[in-house]
Amino acid sequence: MSKRIGVLLSGCGVFDGSEIHEAVLTLLALDRAGAQAVCMAPNTDQYHVINHLTQQETGEKRNVLVESARIARGVIQDLKDVKASDIDGLILPGGFGAAKNLSDFAFKGPDAAVHPEVKRLLQEMTAAGKPVGGICIAPATVTKALADKKPEVTIGNDPGTAQGIEAMGGRHHTCTVDMIHVDKNHKIVTTPAYMLGPGIKEVAQGIEKLVNKVVELAG
Amino acid sequence: MSKRIGVLLSGCGVFDGSEIHEAVLTLLALDRAGAQAVCMAPNTDQYHVINHLTQQETGEKRNVLVESARIARGVIQDLKDVKASDIDGLILPGGFGAAKNLSDFAFKGPDAAVHPEVKRLLQEMTAAGKPVGGICIAPATVTKALADKKPEVTIGNDPGTAQGIEAMGGRHHTCTVDMIHVDKNHKIVTTPAYMLGPGIKEVAQGIEKLVNKVVELAG
Repeated sequence: MSKRIGVLLSGCGVFDGSEIHEAVLTLLALDRAGAQAVCMAPNTDQYHVINHLTQQETGEKRNVLVESARIARGVIQDLKDVKASDIDGLILPGGFGAAKNLSDFAFKGPDAAVHPEVKRLLQEMTAAGKPVGGICIAPATVTKALADKKPEVTIGNDPGTAQGIEAMGGRHHTCTVDMIHVDKNHKIVTTPAYMLGPGIKEVAQGIEKLVNKVVELAG
Repeated sequence: MSKRIGVLLSGCGVFDGSEIHEAVLTLLALDRAGAQAVCMAPNTDQYHVINHLTQQETGEKRNVLVESARIARGVIQDLKDVKASDIDGLILPGGFGAAKNLSDFAFKGPDAAVHPEVKRLLQEMTAAGKPVGGICIAPATVTKALADKKPEVTIGNDPGTAQGIEAMGGRHHTCTVDMIHVDKNHKIVTTPAYMLGPGIKEVAQGIEKLVNKVVELAG
């Protein structure tokens, strides 16, 4: 039977939701690895909506689960209904949504609060010895949720973000876009993706490695 | 100098805009082929907005260019500002947006009208001998825009859609998801993608072949 890997989305669009390329590259690599993607998102309003042409706030209200369903082609679950026992591994693509909707790290840095259901599932996964992958800025949210484990992660090489991760109890490791960092003790796999860029083909290299490592570590 | 290939988007989400996987897989294959993607979309309201979780209409208004910018990470042009002389080839990803916003084929079948700017650019490209790629349902819109050429296209094997294409003057060829059909006379390349599925890795095979063929035919 193929392994079931959760993909925790945070909306649909780099500035207010999941980074779309990172999410799709995750789904592609999972399918190629013979794993089954289990898409999910919290059923909650987005922090805000950004016009991606002008980068201005629009004042609209959009729901994280409803917008994430665009990436998942409608096949998606409410995060609150997913338990660690339902999946063999969990991956969080990046995009500002991972630090605006899954936590508020984008606004509060080390003082961020993690969405309660996100925190619950991340803690359940680690307690069960199941792997967690974090892409781009998502490792900041993973670090805050699992701060007591002092997780080792990478977000690339941005000094401010790395400092924020260390301030939350994490240990930051510099990494290039085509590579991953693996915290072997806690089975946490991270890659910088669009925190570094420069383009989709380089981002795809790191994400493919991350997905393959998460699938390998998944039971 | 790398070839510049237009990617004509129609929103962001399979049920009311561009199919997100198909659009991202196009951008990935272009980058891997050493081509430069030039994203564009018409600056017009979507036909409607569909909640991708429930598949119901929401009554919201959203703009095709603004929503397409989510897939393009903000780097996108208004279609009306793009001429055939600006690009070496043009690709239309699928999703219902390609038959709801770029034309109204989804509602009117063979009696569809093509958005004037979409029609203009497609006709300019073909007149200039530059290649056009159409993915999933987009070949229906391409056929209507270029009906006087009697283009050869594929949308897979759906009898109703194939009939609609023939009724508009096109010639439909059955094709599997991992393959492409090439109209050599008019440099039109098409692949069924999610008209057939079954999943992202199969869709990626056809799209990669389509992109490589369009890049090859581009000057």
